[in-house]
Amino acid sequence: MVRDSAATKARILEAATAEFAAAGLAGARVDRIAERAGANKQLIYAYFGSKERLFDTTIETHLGRVLDAVPFDAKDLPGYAARFYDLLAGDPTPLRLWRWQALERPGALAQVPQAVESTLAKLTAVAQAQAAGVVDDSLPPEGLLDIVLALILGAAEGGVDGVHGLSGDLRGALAHAVRRLVEPR
Amino acid sequence: MVRDSAATKARILEAATAEFAAAGLAGARVDRIAERAGANKQLIYAYFGSKERLFDTTIETHLGRVLDAVPFDAKDLPGYAARFYDLLAGDPTPLRLWRWQALERPGALAQVPQAVESTLAKLTAVAQAQAAGVVDDSLPPEGLLDIVLALILGAAEGGVDGVHGLSGDLRGALAHAVRRLVEPR
Repeated sequence: MVRDSAATKARILEAATAEFAAAGLAGARVDRIAERAGANKQLIYAYFGSKERLFDTTIETHLGRVLDAVPFDAKDLPGYAARFYDLLAGDPTPLRLWRWQALERPGALAQVPQAVESTLAKLTAVAQAQAAGVVDDSLPPEGLLDIVLALILGAAEGGVDGVHGLSGDLRGALAHAVRRLVEPR
Repeated sequence: MVRDSAATKARILEAATAEFAAAGLAGARVDRIAERAGANKQLIYAYFGSKERLFDTTIETHLGRVLDAVPFDAKDLPGYAARFYDLLAGDPTPLRLWRWQALERPGALAQVPQAVESTLAKLTAVAQAQAAGVVDDSLPPEGLLDIVLALILGAAEGGVDGVHGLSGDLRGALAHAVRRLVEPR
């Protein structure tokens, strides 16, 4: 029974991922998620509480997957950037979920303990790499991390202004830019 | 009568801006736009054709305003980045409209002649600044422009991972990063 319950929850989360990525929070229908998951709608509410809570859980699940799939490496930030870019370019789901979240649940991600913990660990690693002389220290760790993540996300999201994909090798340009930012002077 | 028609269209576009920025394309209600604009719903369809077309027109109008408000300056890309950031940080509307568009009308912006024209002009200016030795030429103009815009937009959007606002001076970090990217070696 325990195993069945875990499998049902997993099926609901997969169905929720597809529905939320396509339609966002307001546009999603719990009926469709239930149908897709082959689960009872009341069971979804029993497990996850509400559509909003299911949305948050879906995004936290994907954040965890992304964090696991792309380990942070303060000593090789260009490589980290390229790998993160590859993940986001290869699967539109995480980026779509984050965009919907930014529009419909602004600030929610900063409340996730897993996200905060991951950020603090990154900051410590950047500070250590700076102290070791491996990473340029013109910017404080917070500023450098903000900028490197902005660059990765901005590149993966494509630009405004019709620019997206102008560059034949955006991944290479991204790694080059991060290298130039972090190489010690 | 001509002046009244222009004023009505402008009122409709302002009302559409508020509605689309808040609710996106699917979530927007033409009834609410009509009410807010004090205009007849049928008039909106007569002027703009459809909700989708009104959405596109609203976004094109804002794109034009942003392009006018932040002139591109290939010889001072750090300053351009800081000014663009200021505009986006000071008014959430353009960023919200672009996010909804990326989710609900992907690829639409690249079809706007104004956007394409603006991008081509930027590329020419970057190539000239590189040829003049004012801007580093390690990346081709397309790659450099992609990266600088990714950095600006990524910084304005805030990061994933709870990082947004970590840096006490994201604007300063952005200008610093762009400077380091474009300064000739």
